[in-house]
Amino acid sequence: MLKKTALMVCAALAAAPALAAPKNIIYMIGDGMGPAYLAAYRYYMDDPATKTVERTIFDELWVGVATTYPDDDTVVTDSAAAATALATTHKTYNGAISVDHQHHNLTTMLEIAKAKGKTTGVVATAQINHATPASFIAHDPARRNYDAIADDFFDNRVHGKPVADLMLGGGTQYFIRKDRNLVEQFKSEGYQYADNWDGLRQLNKLPAMALLAPEGFVSTIDNPEPAPLKQMTEKALQLMSGSEKGFVVMIEGSQIDWCGHANDVACAMAEMRDFAESIKVAKAYVDSHPDTLLVITADHETGGLSLGANGQYAWKRDVIKKVKNSGDYIADQLLPLKDAATLYQAWLSFTSLPLSAEEQQLLVNARAEGQKTLAKAVKQRIDHHSLTGWTSGAHTAIDVPVLAYGADKAAFAGFQDNTDIAAKLIEFIQK
Amino acid sequence: MLKKTALMVCAALAAAPALAAPKNIIYMIGDGMGPAYLAAYRYYMDDPATKTVERTIFDELWVGVATTYPDDDTVVTDSAAAATALATTHKTYNGAISVDHQHHNLTTMLEIAKAKGKTTGVVATAQINHATPASFIAHDPARRNYDAIADDFFDNRVHGKPVADLMLGGGTQYFIRKDRNLVEQFKSEGYQYADNWDGLRQLNKLPAMALLAPEGFVSTIDNPEPAPLKQMTEKALQLMSGSEKGFVVMIEGSQIDWCGHANDVACAMAEMRDFAESIKVAKAYVDSHPDTLLVITADHETGGLSLGANGQYAWKRDVIKKVKNSGDYIADQLLPLKDAATLYQAWLSFTSLPLSAEEQQLLVNARAEGQKTLAKAVKQRIDHHSLTGWTSGAHTAIDVPVLAYGADKAAFAGFQDNTDIAAKLIEFIQK
Repeated sequence: MLKKTALMVCAALAAAPALAAPKNIIYMIGDGMGPAYLAAYRYYMDDPATKTVERTIFDELWVGVATTYPDDDTVVTDSAAAATALATTHKTYNGAISVDHQHHNLTTMLEIAKAKGKTTGVVATAQINHATPASFIAHDPARRNYDAIADDFFDNRVHGKPVADLMLGGGTQYFIRKDRNLVEQFKSEGYQYADNWDGLRQLNKLPAMALLAPEGFVSTIDNPEPAPLKQMTEKALQLMSGSEKGFVVMIEGSQIDWCGHANDVACAMAEMRDFAESIKVAKAYVDSHPDTLLVITADHETGGLSLGANGQYAWKRDVIKKVKNSGDYIADQLLPLKDAATLYQAWLSFTSLPLSAEEQQLLVNARAEGQKTLAKAVKQRIDHHSLTGWTSGAHTAIDVPVLAYGADKAAFAGFQDNTDIAAKLIEFIQK
Repeated sequence: MLKKTALMVCAALAAAPALAAPKNIIYMIGDGMGPAYLAAYRYYMDDPATKTVERTIFDELWVGVATTYPDDDTVVTDSAAAATALATTHKTYNGAISVDHQHHNLTTMLEIAKAKGKTTGVVATAQINHATPASFIAHDPARRNYDAIADDFFDNRVHGKPVADLMLGGGTQYFIRKDRNLVEQFKSEGYQYADNWDGLRQLNKLPAMALLAPEGFVSTIDNPEPAPLKQMTEKALQLMSGSEKGFVVMIEGSQIDWCGHANDVACAMAEMRDFAESIKVAKAYVDSHPDTLLVITADHETGGLSLGANGQYAWKRDVIKKVKNSGDYIADQLLPLKDAATLYQAWLSFTSLPLSAEEQQLLVNARAEGQKTLAKAVKQRIDHHSLTGWTSGAHTAIDVPVLAYGADKAAFAGFQDNTDIAAKLIEFIQK
């Protein structure tokens, strides 16, 4: 009976509006990271020497799922509408950067955080004015208006200051233009600035900005700089830690989605790995700063990825583990090789995947058609042998995972809409 | 501080081994019901007159996810290995019916329940000796040994009695054979028996058995008998209710998987609807009998279903809503129609889906190739217009949803392995 009474108290507490709000929020978005990506990564990372499949950091933190549909009848969202929902609590049309159907601005959680005196930031491996980070800082009727969105990063102000105290990612071509040099403008307002990885490591106070590529970064699987998102995550938490009124940072694994659009499973696994390593950094931060909440989700699924194809009961992760580069990169290297034997040797050096004579001929034929066809053929051979399936080069409507860590994680358990995630976070920020 | 102390008590209670065990367990398995099926069903059932997408019964009860990999390095399970995991806590090889690699019997939760004096049952729309229900009652090295498995339903005994007090589903061809009439044997041990739907409705005490089809039922979308699983669920709970020591019943939505294998989305949605209605019946039972736990999961995903295909940002559920029958059934009806115009009129009567002249010709050409090709063409037209994607005629390795309702539902929250679900249920049964 005592136990029963205690349980009733627990139930009452669980039903209560909320616990004490966390001081800091780390909000991580795996762009395109549908549930199949988490399963794929688990089997991809599995230690073959043990009988049990080891749990990943994603598995450890998994608490719920979220719907992603936009504010129209397509059911399938794009990254702009999804990021707007995740940043503002409002569903909108595909393509909108934190504006509604009438193009009115929708207040973002970074604007709210900044107004409350909190430290704010965005981190991405895309250009920082790409849909997901943009929807936290800027407002625009069309995601493709990259220059106008970059302008808004400086011009959209809260209490006279830019919305974000920290911006790490790509995008020099949008922030240093002939018609306007936004980097100089940020610097004149006291922002430290870096345009290379050494410079990133030397950033030592806020406000700060690092633009490490003209647009998005080179795909992680092809990038000589190891774990770019992890490095930026470490720097962001180092710079934001100790903020008097707390911080809110959005960290995006931007290119999981890009690999999904390319239907490139090896590319996707490399992005998942960098995202996983970044999550570990964030989790360790929560462990040492229990006043921090970590929430991780995806904006949508990309590609209709599945682990199993063509009627066979298997998914062969070993095939994927051996692939050294993205399909696009491999195609670039194979393209000049006119001799069939040389082409096949190069193929083997990138994939360690033996092909039948018929399959080798498929590559030779594809090469003759050009880079795009060759890249597609490269990925199709990998998919064929690993039994990886895709249904689309675009997004799909299936629900996405929700992960959370920290004292308030229960608020994100079970089934919810993407706008519910934003609503709970904003409720915490406003306390 | 009071709140903090109370929270610590809650945390301690949550970490404690378990709450008081439920008296009754309703264990529902949606065969093949990967996460995309739940999302598809939500958008399929959505009321277009409202802006919000209504939550389904699945959404309301969603608490976690489970891995499904079998005990080999394929990663992709079949229904036998998965059902063995869900019934016994042991992973095994694909094809095994509750035996290990050495063909030793693995004790099932229904055997344990029966040994504890509980009332036991299985309900399926497949033949009851199909992989999923079989793995709760019988033991066999190979799922295809249907006769031997049916024999085991009678011969495998606990305290001198058959394992299951209630068996509802299909399978007369395996239970009434020239070499052995198992139905007569069950009747001679006091089992009520029905072989038609009126007979099912008249069953009024246990033990009881109803075999309502030679093998599996006619696909629900083509079945004149409405909501077959819901009807059987109602009868099962009516018969098992009031059992002195409680009951354990496994209820399978068997043919979600079969529609998945056929890559037939309209078929799958009809099976999901019957499964959803059955879940509502089970949930209502828990509401009126709070000593009952309802747990729902899937054994694996089938088909690599996704909502979105061919690079387009949409999933058109309206196309699917209008389809009246399975692809197989429609092909059967179209096959005799040699005249192209007559064929197209018939197509429209089954699907209300206008086709271009080129697409009409695709159907005419497919008809000439025979029923199988025609059925495939029918489904491809529906997929093409609804933007439904599939990657396989077999299973895939992605994680499956876990739903729960009742006082102990928290035990199934978050990430787990399929064997964990069985372990928790068996722990409850053994208390």
